[in-house]
Amino acid sequence: MSSDVHSAYKKLVELTKDLIILQSAEAIIHWDMETMMPPRGIEQRSQQLALLSRLSHKMSTSPEIGSLLNEILNSPQYETLTEVEKRNVYLIKKNYDEQTQLPEKLVAEIARQQALTVNTWKKAKAAKSFSMLQPELEKLVELNREKAEILMRVKAVATPYDALIDIFEPKMTAAAIAPIFEQLQNGLVTLLRKIQNAPNQPNTAILKCSVPVETQRQIAKALAETMGYDVSSPTAAGRIDETEHPFTTGYYDDVRITTHYYPEEFASSIFSVLHETGHALYEQGLPREWKYQPVGASCSYGIHESQSRFVENIIGRSREFWSSFLPKLKAIAGVSLAHLELDSFVSAINEVKPSKIRVEADEVTYCLHIVIRFQIERDLFGNKIEVNQLPEIWNQKYEELLGLKIENDAEGVMQDTHWASGYYGYFPSYALGNIYSGQLLSALAKDIGDWQSQLAEGNTKNIMEWLAKNVHAYGALYDPNDLITKITGRKLDAGPYLQYLQEKYSTLYGF
Amino acid sequence: MSSDVHSAYKKLVELTKDLIILQSAEAIIHWDMETMMPPRGIEQRSQQLALLSRLSHKMSTSPEIGSLLNEILNSPQYETLTEVEKRNVYLIKKNYDEQTQLPEKLVAEIARQQALTVNTWKKAKAAKSFSMLQPELEKLVELNREKAEILMRVKAVATPYDALIDIFEPKMTAAAIAPIFEQLQNGLVTLLRKIQNAPNQPNTAILKCSVPVETQRQIAKALAETMGYDVSSPTAAGRIDETEHPFTTGYYDDVRITTHYYPEEFASSIFSVLHETGHALYEQGLPREWKYQPVGASCSYGIHESQSRFVENIIGRSREFWSSFLPKLKAIAGVSLAHLELDSFVSAINEVKPSKIRVEADEVTYCLHIVIRFQIERDLFGNKIEVNQLPEIWNQKYEELLGLKIENDAEGVMQDTHWASGYYGYFPSYALGNIYSGQLLSALAKDIGDWQSQLAEGNTKNIMEWLAKNVHAYGALYDPNDLITKITGRKLDAGPYLQYLQEKYSTLYGF
Repeated sequence: MSSDVHSAYKKLVELTKDLIILQSAEAIIHWDMETMMPPRGIEQRSQQLALLSRLSHKMSTSPEIGSLLNEILNSPQYETLTEVEKRNVYLIKKNYDEQTQLPEKLVAEIARQQALTVNTWKKAKAAKSFSMLQPELEKLVELNREKAEILMRVKAVATPYDALIDIFEPKMTAAAIAPIFEQLQNGLVTLLRKIQNAPNQPNTAILKCSVPVETQRQIAKALAETMGYDVSSPTAAGRIDETEHPFTTGYYDDVRITTHYYPEEFASSIFSVLHETGHALYEQGLPREWKYQPVGASCSYGIHESQSRFVENIIGRSREFWSSFLPKLKAIAGVSLAHLELDSFVSAINEVKPSKIRVEADEVTYCLHIVIRFQIERDLFGNKIEVNQLPEIWNQKYEELLGLKIENDAEGVMQDTHWASGYYGYFPSYALGNIYSGQLLSALAKDIGDWQSQLAEGNTKNIMEWLAKNVHAYGALYDPNDLITKITGRKLDAGPYLQYLQEKYSTLYGF
Repeated sequence: MSSDVHSAYKKLVELTKDLIILQSAEAIIHWDMETMMPPRGIEQRSQQLALLSRLSHKMSTSPEIGSLLNEILNSPQYETLTEVEKRNVYLIKKNYDEQTQLPEKLVAEIARQQALTVNTWKKAKAAKSFSMLQPELEKLVELNREKAEILMRVKAVATPYDALIDIFEPKMTAAAIAPIFEQLQNGLVTLLRKIQNAPNQPNTAILKCSVPVETQRQIAKALAETMGYDVSSPTAAGRIDETEHPFTTGYYDDVRITTHYYPEEFASSIFSVLHETGHALYEQGLPREWKYQPVGASCSYGIHESQSRFVENIIGRSREFWSSFLPKLKAIAGVSLAHLELDSFVSAINEVKPSKIRVEADEVTYCLHIVIRFQIERDLFGNKIEVNQLPEIWNQKYEELLGLKIENDAEGVMQDTHWASGYYGYFPSYALGNIYSGQLLSALAKDIGDWQSQLAEGNTKNIMEWLAKNVHAYGALYDPNDLITKITGRKLDAGPYLQYLQEKYSTLYGF
């Protein structure tokens, strides 16, 4: 009885701290691979990543963690732990249970195969050749099916695919997602029809102009810093680099984003920077007192995505934001963007038009891309389809749902890095993020009042502080459905998002 | 008896492979800290480095390695191992003995203190304030004195400082270095006097012109690639970045250099790039079949430095190299360097003039900087002086030996990163490198004949191949004195280096 639950807890958290630090180092190694590594480094880099993943696995499955968890959970003093402490214990146990059931060898093989596959994907995409990618991708999917089978039993979920979804969106299942995605799909298709028949169609020709990459870099920096993401001061905790597929990575005081700059499509980097800035601010906004603890992490990928979509779309594509920021944009860009004018610019950046590329999709059709990926993943891990069928099925669904004819696999099934990087069960969280962002907006509007007028005055502070206080500050204290309920008073609900879209686009398109 | 020495060896090398891979990952994390990390990341970065260092220590001291070493070394079959296998066993045992005697806690503290001190050094140097650095440096020196005491006993060397030297230059001692440095010092001082009284004094005004940083980047790339260091092709294994203090880091297929670009001093980056290129080519030239083995590493810091100094000075400051490369330099730089002319340029880049800054020193006075550092380190680790005395002693020695008055500590004792980075016993290898380079040159000249004429024809290939075959290809198979004896037929000898300088500078300065 004298073995104090609090001292066992302290030991447990100390051990976990090492694991978290190791993973933050691994994130740097990953980032370097994507942004900086000389091409010939890939062989040794995959060895490094495999080793780090193996060490991570070893740490999180150490018998010491197992016995400390046992001691704490069976202690009569368990109830004297705080809510945060209990959550740390819960998160450590969840990870421990999963990791102890995954063989070390499988984990290392997946890490190694991931590094090889993503590298092959880059070449295959450049060559527009799915057959170049296929053998590596088949190996990676097979390894992940093995992993999903194991995790399904540990997590006690209904299907292997549910076990994968749970990695990104704790407690979410394909069965729960399916009807909500159907509601979303129906709402979006209805809205899309209205938009396509509306009188005020945008003129996107104004966005087709050359803006030098160096100018776009300055625009990116100004946008990031307007939102409060510091990438250049002597106390900056962020930076912006360039990759084909933008991403955010890092931990607390070193959170980095990437973007791409296309000289003839300046708007593309603007919205990818806003998007990743939303992610970065979430990571930087986690409570300082929880640094190096499991609870000092984001809630889920879907909640993460709600932050990026909020900054990218709800703020970043609003008329109000641009009424304040457009003059700054024009000042930076000089002659190359001198022709821009507020109304037509806002109209153009909100053009709704089915596109082949998810990351370039508008707010209305975006989630339809996710629905397609969700259906394919569900069937792939339900063993109903195989890797070699992916291009055909992909192209067929794009024709059906978006009316688009995919010309080659670089603009089709190989457009995203996710599957080649071993992320299966990840895609649904993108649509969930949009749904959450709608719910958050409706709660925010109740709390801070006329957010649009504030934005129009160049004030992003109140909105960003609301997100920090109501989302970032909770870290991983709750599972996503509980968090969203706590903040908004309602469980997952696609209604507010559809309503936000309806209001915004009826005004823009005049219907 | 049936426990085969070869299967024990195989296991041992397998375990060591993990350690080498971990250290190659740690090198990336270090590089990132120096080149890419946002400023606020320093706290978590020192946590990462401390952890990796702790893991490294744990791996290299695992009881399994101890018992495998025991099994191999006591096996009656030991003699059936090849020379390379025996060398791997020797190197693993040497490291194991040292590491098992170093407490894990001390190793982690040093790593953590190093990261903090080097960061403070950057700020202190910018502020020209040694007192800002002093408290951190004192902690770091104290921790390293503790380490040196332990290593002295393990390595069975005469003094703590010898134990530190051995880290960088195996089997070398302060007692062995002292007389050779005295011979070197006397030769250099005599030569310096002749040069200072010679008729042909260079006009360095031609080097004082503005060359845009972007142009200097292109020059750096061209120089690196002329020597065979690929930093831009689709199969490149290198890259060039920017830091205040240039360095090389990496492993086999991912070896990176850094330099600094000063718009008003274009020659500075030229020679730092050539220098680091020499280092990088050594790392990339290690035998492929030894990758992930202890023998697949450089021989010593001194031998490493012989490669960098060979490329920087023996090739890079020769009239012959520039007779071929100057037209290329001028083509890249355009109008900003249109005034350069071969004879006066070669004369200017070989100006001999006592300088305050080591990395900007000429070939003749360079080793005098090292002699000063050697004497200070010897006394610091002999407990004859303390950290707070460093600026005074430093300034006094620069006055005595080089006739220079140090105005502030940024151009004095804080000029180099080494001490703040925890590298003690490192500096002597810089002078040893020059001595080795002289010995290598005399052997190379016997082998490939008129190397100067080859250079003048723009052919660096024969020279670089000779270095690859005679130096790089041996990896860490021998200790430095043995390697240099094998290549040149003579033990460490300052004669050839002094002779090379005498011949070169008597021609240049006309005496």
